[in-house]
Amino acid sequence: MHRAVAELLAEEEAETLTLPAVAARAGVHPTTLYRRWGSTAQLLTDVATSRFSDDLVVPDSGSLAGDLERWLADVATDVADPDTLALMRATIATGPAGGCACVEDRHRQLGAILRHEVERGGTAPEVESAADSLLGPVYYRAVFTSEPASADWARGLVATYLSTLPQSSADPRPTDTR
Amino acid sequence: MHRAVAELLAEEEAETLTLPAVAARAGVHPTTLYRRWGSTAQLLTDVATSRFSDDLVVPDSGSLAGDLERWLADVATDVADPDTLALMRATIATGPAGGCACVEDRHRQLGAILRHEVERGGTAPEVESAADSLLGPVYYRAVFTSEPASADWARGLVATYLSTLPQSSADPRPTDTR
Repeated sequence: MHRAVAELLAEEEAETLTLPAVAARAGVHPTTLYRRWGSTAQLLTDVATSRFSDDLVVPDSGSLAGDLERWLADVATDVADPDTLALMRATIATGPAGGCACVEDRHRQLGAILRHEVERGGTAPEVESAADSLLGPVYYRAVFTSEPASADWARGLVATYLSTLPQSSADPRPTDTR
Repeated sequence: MHRAVAELLAEEEAETLTLPAVAARAGVHPTTLYRRWGSTAQLLTDVATSRFSDDLVVPDSGSLAGDLERWLADVATDVADPDTLALMRATIATGPAGGCACVEDRHRQLGAILRHEVERGGTAPEVESAADSLLGPVYYRAVFTSEPASADWARGLVATYLSTLPQSSADPRPTDTR
């Protein structure tokens, strides 16, 4: 069923994605889909949750900067994929739960990276603030602009973000280099 | 026609928004809509472009920080509106042009604010980098999370962003306050 949704999204506008169309593509009776998912919104949210779950490895490079750079570069690469974007766009349209389904696992991964840093004896910001500054620009570029969200650019976001933290053990800066 | 789209989006899931449904709500023959817009995607992009055009005043408070804070607080307030969000979600689903239609005017407004600062003799960053750091978190919260994008929080984003700029005449910091 998930493959049927992905295929239809790759071929057509999201508005043609209906349960009967997915059923036809998957070769099952529409009643089966209505019984299990109830609506296209529910099916899409389910597909997005499963697609974006645990698909990225949480890196453990030994430093917060290294972990965040590797991870955000992977997120940016994933989000730049046209099929990923088509699924995200269609899922967003189903309502608040749809948008959340696209990034829930990203927040979980980010939380794990920040916890690693605390376990190493460093300090780490709140997940929400890190998500604003790191995931915000990546998903914004992908969904709202025609600017590329490249891996290099994503690594630059991490460097800028870490420079705004009051004191990051992963990014110690001399008090005065001038 | 624009009101018919807004009404339908406020009432129903985006997937029920079809040209015949809009035509029925607006009391016109579907053929009229197909002749003018061709597709729901085109109609939605048109509605979004018109809805998000010049709807926010570009402030001129005398400083870059003041202008950005006032403007981003307005953007955050607008984006938190359920009707605005419903239109954005439905438009995003239509494809890349849909997402761009939601924020084109925001980029124009941001460009004007940055130009004002240069005209005042200050320095200003590129629009793209400012959009990443300011519009990115606001639209990310609205579309992908259940976190509120409050006006106060938006003003905090501006302060953090300005602190990352190499030298902003709007935010002069002493070289060493310790």
